[in-house]
Amino acid sequence: MQLYTYFRSSAAWRVRIALALKGIATTPEFIHLLKDGGQQKTAVFRRKNPMGVVPVLELDDGALLTQSLAIIEYLEETHPTPALLPADPVARAKMRAFALAIACDIHPLNNLRVLQYLELDMGQGHEARNAWYQHWISEGLTALEALLKDAGPGPFCFGAKPGVADVCLVPQMANARRYKCPLDAYPTLLRAEAAALALPAFRDTAPDRQPDAA
Amino acid sequence: MQLYTYFRSSAAWRVRIALALKGIATTPEFIHLLKDGGQQKTAVFRRKNPMGVVPVLELDDGALLTQSLAIIEYLEETHPTPALLPADPVARAKMRAFALAIACDIHPLNNLRVLQYLELDMGQGHEARNAWYQHWISEGLTALEALLKDAGPGPFCFGAKPGVADVCLVPQMANARRYKCPLDAYPTLLRAEAAALALPAFRDTAPDRQPDAA
Repeated sequence: MQLYTYFRSSAAWRVRIALALKGIATTPEFIHLLKDGGQQKTAVFRRKNPMGVVPVLELDDGALLTQSLAIIEYLEETHPTPALLPADPVARAKMRAFALAIACDIHPLNNLRVLQYLELDMGQGHEARNAWYQHWISEGLTALEALLKDAGPGPFCFGAKPGVADVCLVPQMANARRYKCPLDAYPTLLRAEAAALALPAFRDTAPDRQPDAA
Repeated sequence: MQLYTYFRSSAAWRVRIALALKGIATTPEFIHLLKDGGQQKTAVFRRKNPMGVVPVLELDDGALLTQSLAIIEYLEETHPTPALLPADPVARAKMRAFALAIACDIHPLNNLRVLQYLELDMGQGHEARNAWYQHWISEGLTALEALLKDAGPGPFCFGAKPGVADVCLVPQMANARRYKCPLDAYPTLLRAEAAALALPAFRDTAPDRQPDAA
C-alpha cells in the first residue's frame, strides 16, 4: 500500500498514527502542499484524489481511498486488532463524534486552502487570519474538553487505550500549538495528548520526524 | 428517542433522512438557530451538545449522540436494515469518503456560524460572502462529481439503493440551490439527487416540510 502524505498535514498524520498503532507498513509518496504551486493541485494527483488533498491510501490493487476518517474505518474493518473504536455502539458513537468534531468543526476552517483563500481572495492580513484561526480553535477545544467531562480517568480521551479520538486530537493540538493558541483551559485534552505522545505510534509519525519535513 | 433539529440545518436533515429510511420514529425538539440569538448557543442546549450545533439524538436512557455521521453510524449498527453502507470494506470506504467530502470539506465552510463570522467579525459584505460560498460549493461539487465517475449507472450515488452518500448529497445540493450555485456541470450528482427526492424518506424530511419551518 502507498500513502500519499505531507509531513504537516494533520489529516495525513491521523492516518500515519492509525497505521502505526495497527502495525501496518506502507510506502510513503510525498506530496508537497506548497512546492510547485501545490503538488496536490496537479492533474496527476487529482486523478488520485479529485478533492486535491492528502492523505490518499492506494491499495495494492490500485483502489484509491480518501478522507482520513474513511481510511481509518477501512483499516479498522480490515485490521481489527488493536481496535481503535470501542465495541459498544453508544461508546463508538461518542468516540466518532469526538473525532468528527475535530474533522468537521475545527480542522476544515483552519487548513491551508482556507487560510490561502482568506489571504489571496479576501485580502485578509496576518492578524485577521490569526484571529480566525484562534477563534475556531478556542470554540472547538472548549467543546472537546466538555465532551470528555464524563469520559473517566483516561489517560487517553476515552479510557486506558488510545482510539480514533486520540488519533484526531494529537494533530489538532499540534496545530493549536503551532499557532500559539492558549491551552491551559483544556486539562483533559492535555492529559490525553501527553499520554498519546508517550507512544511511538504518535511520536514517530509527527511532522518533524517525517522524511519530507522541510 | 428525541431528535434536536432545525428545519434548515443540513446536518439535521441528514439524520432525518437516515431515520426515515430505516423507519425509526423520534420525537422532534426544535432548536431555532436564529431566534433568541441562536437557541443552540444557550447553556441549556450546550449541556446537550457542547459544540452548540444540531443535530443531537437523545436516547431513551438519556445518552446524547452528536455529529450527524456518528449518529448515522450508530443507527446503522443498531438498526442494520435497510443498510446505508455497502458490505465490502473498500466500497464502504468509498461511500464514507464521499460523505466525509461533504461533511468535512464543503459543509463546514458554508454553515451559519462561519457566514456569521465572516460578516460580523471580519466585516465581509454580502458579495464577498456569496463568492466564498460559491467557491467552496464549486470546488466541492466538482470533486464529488469526479468521485462518482466510476461508480456505475446509479441511479443513486453508488448504485441501485440510497446510502450514506445520498443522505449527505441531497441536503448539500439544496444548499447549493439556495445560494443559486450553477449545477449543470454535475450531471451525476443531479441524477442521484433526483432519484433520492423521488423517495418519501428524502422528500418528506426536507426543510420546507418541517413543522418548525418559518
